[in-house]
Amino acid sequence: MRATLLHGAGDIRVSTVPDPSLRDPRDALVRVTHACICGSDLWPYRSAPESAEGRRIGHEFLGVVEAVGGEVTRLAPGDRVIAPFMYSDGTCTHCRAGWPTSCIAGGFWGGDDTFGRLVDGGQGEYVRVPLADGTLVPVPEETDPKLDPALLSLSDVMGTGHHAAVSARVRQGGTVAVVGDGAVGLCGVLAARRLGAARIIALSRHDDRWRLAEHFGATDRVDERDPVEAAAQVRDMTAGVGVDSALECVGTRQAFDTAVEIARPGGAIGYVGVPQDLVERRAEIPLRLMFERNLTLSGGLAPARAYLPDLLADVLAGSLDPGPVFDLVLPLAEAADGYRAMAERTAVKVLLTP
Amino acid sequence: MRATLLHGAGDIRVSTVPDPSLRDPRDALVRVTHACICGSDLWPYRSAPESAEGRRIGHEFLGVVEAVGGEVTRLAPGDRVIAPFMYSDGTCTHCRAGWPTSCIAGGFWGGDDTFGRLVDGGQGEYVRVPLADGTLVPVPEETDPKLDPALLSLSDVMGTGHHAAVSARVRQGGTVAVVGDGAVGLCGVLAARRLGAARIIALSRHDDRWRLAEHFGATDRVDERDPVEAAAQVRDMTAGVGVDSALECVGTRQAFDTAVEIARPGGAIGYVGVPQDLVERRAEIPLRLMFERNLTLSGGLAPARAYLPDLLADVLAGSLDPGPVFDLVLPLAEAADGYRAMAERTAVKVLLTP
Repeated sequence: MRATLLHGAGDIRVSTVPDPSLRDPRDALVRVTHACICGSDLWPYRSAPESAEGRRIGHEFLGVVEAVGGEVTRLAPGDRVIAPFMYSDGTCTHCRAGWPTSCIAGGFWGGDDTFGRLVDGGQGEYVRVPLADGTLVPVPEETDPKLDPALLSLSDVMGTGHHAAVSARVRQGGTVAVVGDGAVGLCGVLAARRLGAARIIALSRHDDRWRLAEHFGATDRVDERDPVEAAAQVRDMTAGVGVDSALECVGTRQAFDTAVEIARPGGAIGYVGVPQDLVERRAEIPLRLMFERNLTLSGGLAPARAYLPDLLADVLAGSLDPGPVFDLVLPLAEAADGYRAMAERTAVKVLLTP
Repeated sequence: MRATLLHGAGDIRVSTVPDPSLRDPRDALVRVTHACICGSDLWPYRSAPESAEGRRIGHEFLGVVEAVGGEVTRLAPGDRVIAPFMYSDGTCTHCRAGWPTSCIAGGFWGGDDTFGRLVDGGQGEYVRVPLADGTLVPVPEETDPKLDPALLSLSDVMGTGHHAAVSARVRQGGTVAVVGDGAVGLCGVLAARRLGAARIIALSRHDDRWRLAEHFGATDRVDERDPVEAAAQVRDMTAGVGVDSALECVGTRQAFDTAVEIARPGGAIGYVGVPQDLVERRAEIPLRLMFERNLTLSGGLAPARAYLPDLLADVLAGSLDPGPVFDLVLPLAEAADGYRAMAERTAVKVLLTP
């Protein structure tokens, strides 16, 4: 089959790799119909060491079940399924507590499973899905193909934006600011609206992204480039008080500091951008200010699998449509162009069709 | 009057200072009947620069109203009152939202008020209390003098332990660990029991403090000195899962790291120790691990004033008694001995009687 391989910084190729097959009775084999590129794929895309062999990449996909192992009971060939960005068994103590991203048997697409066997990346024609019953969520009805981008967004980006909003304790009538106007930030805006926020301030310097933020429910814009000045503007817009909920959807120190600066005393920061600017996995954060203001910091790897049923119901009901975050559709063969477009910010998020 | 002054590291003296008087129509003048020394007083006690003049210190007191300004409506001379560890107006946007520690007009005992006028420290014979209606909580009935330590604890230490537990989202039936066996940690144990935790693991290396922790409701002890090994023991005690709620009641990097290490995925850390080990008000925290495990960090300066009515009701009802955290009672004149005893850990918490 054809699959995307990362060979080094800026070096993405679509190559022929071994066809996957069932290797465990809990596996499913899925033919990918829609995949995409994540903002988090850009971190290795920008920094990966050179590799002749390359490594699989991609962790968001929609597809059709082709075959299932003997222990799979909830899925059958022909089912259309959404894959969250990690696989998980759905039965361990962490899964049952609502944290499938900490599943004891789970893991990431494109890595090895607990038996050391390759798990395909999401940007390819087929994926062997471990722990299929726990991982995959079937789409329970025929849907208009126009809904496909929205369904695909539930793999990661919409669940992650939702996690930012939930972690930031967005409530009915609350005041929210979203730091980051990438696809996750835009989904954060949509999630905040869905949770009933009365005011949603988007920090957005790009006119096209601001238009999408507005479409998703943003009520106010701050387009200032300087982060200190941007924070000051948010504070001015909230009568000096700050926002109830700050969504940090980037992962950089600067975005983190901005979120801290704009949250009101007792407010919450929901952070979902993979933390950058680390030294030995540690970040320097303005803890003294957070302590004085009683800010809550919550978030992390979004439990997309746990959120999927609720968000899917809303997509199917027509009340939630994150689909417009995909502003460029390319065939899988042109994945390299997709990465370039996202890295250069000429596209918000790229959908790939194998 | 006599009041405690800090003249430099290790140099505490009780001296004669000007008698306070009403200086604002919202002031009350309070005769202090009970004061105490806080773990947070030990930070300046250990590090303050030399000062011939000295600076006022102490922020916890119980007393009797002697006089009130013309705009004070909720208090009258003769009222017994509890002072939380900061003063606040009770009416600004932050007070109304439940965060009196962020009161726009509020501040700390021993500093200057918003008009630049000295506010007495709590360790003295009298205190001029700004914004008295918002700040002071009257004790509504005659009480047994045996309750005085419990009432005094509501100034700070019990409210702070409670804040750690609330911030760590302690719930009925939950599993909790408390890092720090000082007075705040011990109150954290008591607060966790009050909130219904089923299991409370105290990290305590001192037998006498462990006995108090057990009296307050701790169910399990870890007495290991090495923090990595202590964390490993907590994880072993929870079948490798970690605790739902970790209370960080120290403020050091080591205590913070321990709390992160022992929290289960999706768990919460309530931190109330004033953060130490900072560089330019920033701390290096293990953010990558927190992100992977979806840990929530919450806490800060406890809104003791906001918690006071509920905790006071329980003290008066006899269902809450933090009084035993005071294990040494000294006259105000011997405050220096009290500081020494707490710094050398021969006392958990010292009560001073002017």
